[in-house]
Amino acid sequence: MVKKMLFTLGALSLLFPAMAFAEDPSAGTLNMGLNSLWILVAAVLVILMQGGFILLETGSTRMKNAGHVAGKTIFTLGLCTLVYWAVGYGLTFGGSSSISQFIGWGDFFFSPAKAAAEGENYPSTVFFMFQLAFAAVSLSIAWGGFAERAKLSVYLIFTILFTALIYPVIAHWIWGGGWLAEDGAQDFAGSTVVHLTGAIAAFAATVLLKPRIGKFNKDGSANEILGHNQVFSALSVLLLWVGWFGFNAGSTVAVGDGFFGYVAFNTQLGAAGGAVAALLVSWALLGKADIGSMLNGALAGLVAITASCAFVDPWAAVVIGLIAGVLVVFSAKFFEKVKVDDPIFALSVHGVAGIWGTLANGIFATKELAEKVGIGEGGVIDTGNWHQLWVQFESVVVCGAYVLVVSFVLLGLIKAIMGLRVTEEQEIVGLDLSEHGTYGYPEQMKKAGQIDN
Amino acid sequence: MVKKMLFTLGALSLLFPAMAFAEDPSAGTLNMGLNSLWILVAAVLVILMQGGFILLETGSTRMKNAGHVAGKTIFTLGLCTLVYWAVGYGLTFGGSSSISQFIGWGDFFFSPAKAAAEGENYPSTVFFMFQLAFAAVSLSIAWGGFAERAKLSVYLIFTILFTALIYPVIAHWIWGGGWLAEDGAQDFAGSTVVHLTGAIAAFAATVLLKPRIGKFNKDGSANEILGHNQVFSALSVLLLWVGWFGFNAGSTVAVGDGFFGYVAFNTQLGAAGGAVAALLVSWALLGKADIGSMLNGALAGLVAITASCAFVDPWAAVVIGLIAGVLVVFSAKFFEKVKVDDPIFALSVHGVAGIWGTLANGIFATKELAEKVGIGEGGVIDTGNWHQLWVQFESVVVCGAYVLVVSFVLLGLIKAIMGLRVTEEQEIVGLDLSEHGTYGYPEQMKKAGQIDN
Amino acid sequence: MVKKMLFTLGALSLLFPAMAFAEDPSAGTLNMGLNSLWILVAAVLVILMQGGFILLETGSTRMKNAGHVAGKTIFTLGLCTLVYWAVGYGLTFGGSSSISQFIGWGDFFFSPAKAAAEGENYPSTVFFMFQLAFAAVSLSIAWGGFAERAKLSVYLIFTILFTALIYPVIAHWIWGGGWLAEDGAQDFAGSTVVHLTGAIAAFAATVLLKPRIGKFNKDGSANEILGHNQVFSALSVLLLWVGWFGFNAGSTVAVGDGFFGYVAFNTQLGAAGGAVAALLVSWALLGKADIGSMLNGALAGLVAITASCAFVDPWAAVVIGLIAGVLVVFSAKFFEKVKVDDPIFALSVHGVAGIWGTLANGIFATKELAEKVGIGEGGVIDTGNWHQLWVQFESVVVCGAYVLVVSFVLLGLIKAIMGLRVTEEQEIVGLDLSEHGTYGYPEQMKKAGQIDN
Repeated sequence: MVKKMLFTLGALSLLFPAMAFAEDPSAGTLNMGLNSLWILVAAVLVILMQGGFILLETGSTRMKNAGHVAGKTIFTLGLCTLVYWAVGYGLTFGGSSSISQFIGWGDFFFSPAKAAAEGENYPSTVFFMFQLAFAAVSLSIAWGGFAERAKLSVYLIFTILFTALIYPVIAHWIWGGGWLAEDGAQDFAGSTVVHLTGAIAAFAATVLLKPRIGKFNKDGSANEILGHNQVFSALSVLLLWVGWFGFNAGSTVAVGDGFFGYVAFNTQLGAAGGAVAALLVSWALLGKADIGSMLNGALAGLVAITASCAFVDPWAAVVIGLIAGVLVVFSAKFFEKVKVDDPIFALSVHGVAGIWGTLANGIFATKELAEKVGIGEGGVIDTGNWHQLWVQFESVVVCGAYVLVVSFVLLGLIKAIMGLRVTEEQEIVGLDLSEHGTYGYPEQMKKAGQIDN
Repeated sequence: MVKKMLFTLGALSLLFPAMAFAEDPSAGTLNMGLNSLWILVAAVLVILMQGGFILLETGSTRMKNAGHVAGKTIFTLGLCTLVYWAVGYGLTFGGSSSISQFIGWGDFFFSPAKAAAEGENYPSTVFFMFQLAFAAVSLSIAWGGFAERAKLSVYLIFTILFTALIYPVIAHWIWGGGWLAEDGAQDFAGSTVVHLTGAIAAFAATVLLKPRIGKFNKDGSANEILGHNQVFSALSVLLLWVGWFGFNAGSTVAVGDGFFGYVAFNTQLGAAGGAVAALLVSWALLGKADIGSMLNGALAGLVAITASCAFVDPWAAVVIGLIAGVLVVFSAKFFEKVKVDDPIFALSVHGVAGIWGTLANGIFATKELAEKVGIGEGGVIDTGNWHQLWVQFESVVVCGAYVLVVSFVLLGLIKAIMGLRVTEEQEIVGLDLSEHGTYGYPEQMKKAGQIDN
Repeated sequence: MVKKMLFTLGALSLLFPAMAFAEDPSAGTLNMGLNSLWILVAAVLVILMQGGFILLETGSTRMKNAGHVAGKTIFTLGLCTLVYWAVGYGLTFGGSSSISQFIGWGDFFFSPAKAAAEGENYPSTVFFMFQLAFAAVSLSIAWGGFAERAKLSVYLIFTILFTALIYPVIAHWIWGGGWLAEDGAQDFAGSTVVHLTGAIAAFAATVLLKPRIGKFNKDGSANEILGHNQVFSALSVLLLWVGWFGFNAGSTVAVGDGFFGYVAFNTQLGAAGGAVAALLVSWALLGKADIGSMLNGALAGLVAITASCAFVDPWAAVVIGLIAGVLVVFSAKFFEKVKVDDPIFALSVHGVAGIWGTLANGIFATKELAEKVGIGEGGVIDTGNWHQLWVQFESVVVCGAYVLVVSFVLLGLIKAIMGLRVTEEQEIVGLDLSEHGTYGYPEQMKKAGQIDN
């Protein structure tokens, strides 16, 4: 058996020798290391999801806006990071205060310990990275409502407001020890915290911005504004699916007894259910199997299983995914019918499926798993008790209401002060030219004779 | 030294406290956690390979089919998941029975334990995820033979049949304790189980579907139907290469003594050999360095090293890769010459290199490594004994024959009952329009004046 | 508590039983396993960065060269692997010798132990994979200077020369126990070793190759040669950003006390600072927010924080990133003004930001962290001592000079013997056709009526 860590590995030992241990680490330290590694890997997977959003959003929009749509994701990821570091993290998880039921306070301009302290399950640095990645996903979901017509400056301002004033409040209520956590609200990885929050902000934006030019006719009928690249869309779904294992299974924030594998397993079943159901429904409904609907189905399955992945049995994960896949097709039709322009399907994929996923806990959660996770109770089917469903319902309504009101107020103020939308001329020529001075696809646009637009 | 895990990390402890341990975990539990983490990360890398397949298959085909080709990957991944969960996993690894040499039985609609039991090396959930990802890769390889002309409904039906009746049988024989495992067949990560199985199914499909319109002239000469996007193709190879570290090194299903690093190391050498050899051969042969051949060479190197990565010395890994790179160029020419239309080069990349890789064990495996892994014996060079080469040959022939016969029968039945192929008109207009109602690249197709086709 | 590892997990135990332990592993072995897992995952993330380079380089260049630019990345990754295995690794880390201050010697055609020996922190296989991935990144940076006009054969030859004669020398000096390591030069993950080395080679290439046709007018003014796909560019930045967590945080080569999380945290802040600063500067400077500048800003932030990520406080990481973002915009303008054609911005992103990042250690490094890492001293701000800044300056100058001289000599020899550049006609028609015989985008080029060029 190895008794002591030796440092002699030829020249290799010259690399940062102090990173290693002078003697064998304790079981507690090894456990901390294992958790840390998993949390950082999970955070990286969630950051990779931004690549999914770049492709999802460009794939679903038009060539004249592609550079703008793709590029703003990198910029807002950067700005979101700085704002979350300065205030967002502290408002979510910071210290405790007399109002800690409603908001955290402390750890602003977060300057963490360099390493884990004795007895910690992981250093706060990896926890920060993981939580920051979630905030950035919620923000990227919100952009769905701004697509193809909001000014670039609005992206800048709303990144700051969302990361400081909207997302941290919901995250604190449910994950930061706030009043919904105390009520036992179950939202394992954020069907409400991340997805519904982003979707409601998108809803406020798309209502205030009004539909894109050409989306609806005077008689109220809708035109289909097709995205320009379904390969991007399909690849985006795959990247998001992959990242989701970090999102959901990483939310255990521990390797522990291997339960994170069960969470990943349920996640896969939910995604599969969503993809299959949406394809079949769109096929039956439209006569042709619609690629976009199927892709949305996979995402809706993932969104829905996000709250419940740690609380339900495998068969329930499949059912939750299947229902999400059906809901996403019908809700997309519904939003079009009520003349809400939802270019990236944020409202149906993240909003409706986010609500469904959160409520699903109240129906399918098992007593065994609620006790294992240590949050809330079993749902109607397993326990016959309607209490958890009520808590989940409360959670959706209250969080939805907060995000809706604050988003409307903040975006309404921006609209009043400086306007949200580019001019009609700029929108027609495309945001690549009008906001950035060049096309994202200069050769292809030129060939099409559109360079003079 | 840390003696006890404490739960007080400010607000952080409010997140899922039960995931952590109340006291220091044992060395066995930590080892289980380490294995679990590696297996889940490896499974995620293998699922990421589906992104590689999306790009590989669209890059090698035409713009009019791009949305269909990309989108069907997500749909079939979903359906494959449900079928593998319901029956595929149970037929491969399920319990034991009087016929367990030939097929597994049990664990249908798999409902695993929530966490690892005492003494387990990992929870079955992460093992399921890893194995499912392999089944999905094998299926995606098979699609190469269906490309640009099979009906969407055929994808749906064949996903079910392949995942239930074809893949699990081969996987059981070699990895599930079946009769080839008992014979000592060496196929560390699936040159035969995954790659050859997929390629043979692709072969059956492309023969029954017949070549694409315009591929071969009446005089028997072939036309090159170029894929539309080599950037997609190159990126696909990179994504597959990256995912392959999960595929091969993850197949240790243990971190153990660090042997998984050796497997990754050999994998890198094999891939490198394939890429370099294929470029040089195509350069010498065609006068111009063919990008497609070089990309296929990298993949062929990866396919070939898949069986042998844990059994051979580094120099042998290089040689195996180099030979695979040469074989892939010549075999692609061969298939074209015998008028087999292989749009994604599934037959040469996964079939020929899969056979070569499996046989290579019989030549290059070392006694030391065969004993370390605990399967079979050393090959001809190290031991002078031809026995292992015979076992490898047997393995290729028997598995190939099973897949060939069953694929032909099943696809033949589908052909007889409902037809495999879209109409000539649909094929010319493209599957995006004919199967899904819109182009995958609507703006680009319209600009080219093809919207009226 | 688990006392013994059991092997009975149903059929699962049939898979490679020897990979697991017969009894509980020791704490030292578990620690080795944890480090190994992190290093291999980090290596895979760094290899994923090649996907970023494929997209970065194609996104920034023209459609007629896209297949060539993308495909050569795979080929050179393969060749770089073989050369690094044969000689590069041995020259960097091999054994010791009388001249070991200047170069390593040994371990050629590296044939590592199959697993970690007792007392090792990790097996050399995973260390090899990690270091190889770094060499390949440095090479991919160098290609920036060759873009759109170098012959394919030059890529082949320079891959060999760079991987054997240029990169290993610098890596040995700073990371392999060479004389700069002894001087206490701080370059945690390679602002100098990887980025500056690649950028200086790119500089030599672009000077010897001369600017692309059409880049500069006779009156000395510059034309903008736009890249063809900003979606690729934005996605490339995201993939590189993701891979950078392996690059920087992986350079701890240990999980240890969780310090690798701190490195990742600083990396995120640096990237964010760069993206935000570059957008704002380009907006203020040009009147329009330039997507390309902002993307370069994110990369410059990442390059700059690479040397310092383990040595500075979070606020300093933000400042280092912000300054890098400003520098990259101005330096790109500068290179254009002095008529250096830098198609992928290698000189400003990797060169200028690489120098800035290395020097930044001398300013911002803290005594606490220099001692923790065990290399060099604190910088001016924390200690008032200018010594570390001097060491960093020395490091930049000496490494830059070595790479500059050797690159000029080697590329100059190639130029004299066989020429570096394709003919004018080949350059105009594009390297896809002239070097490989087909367009990378055959359908799109044909539609544009350019197939006859």
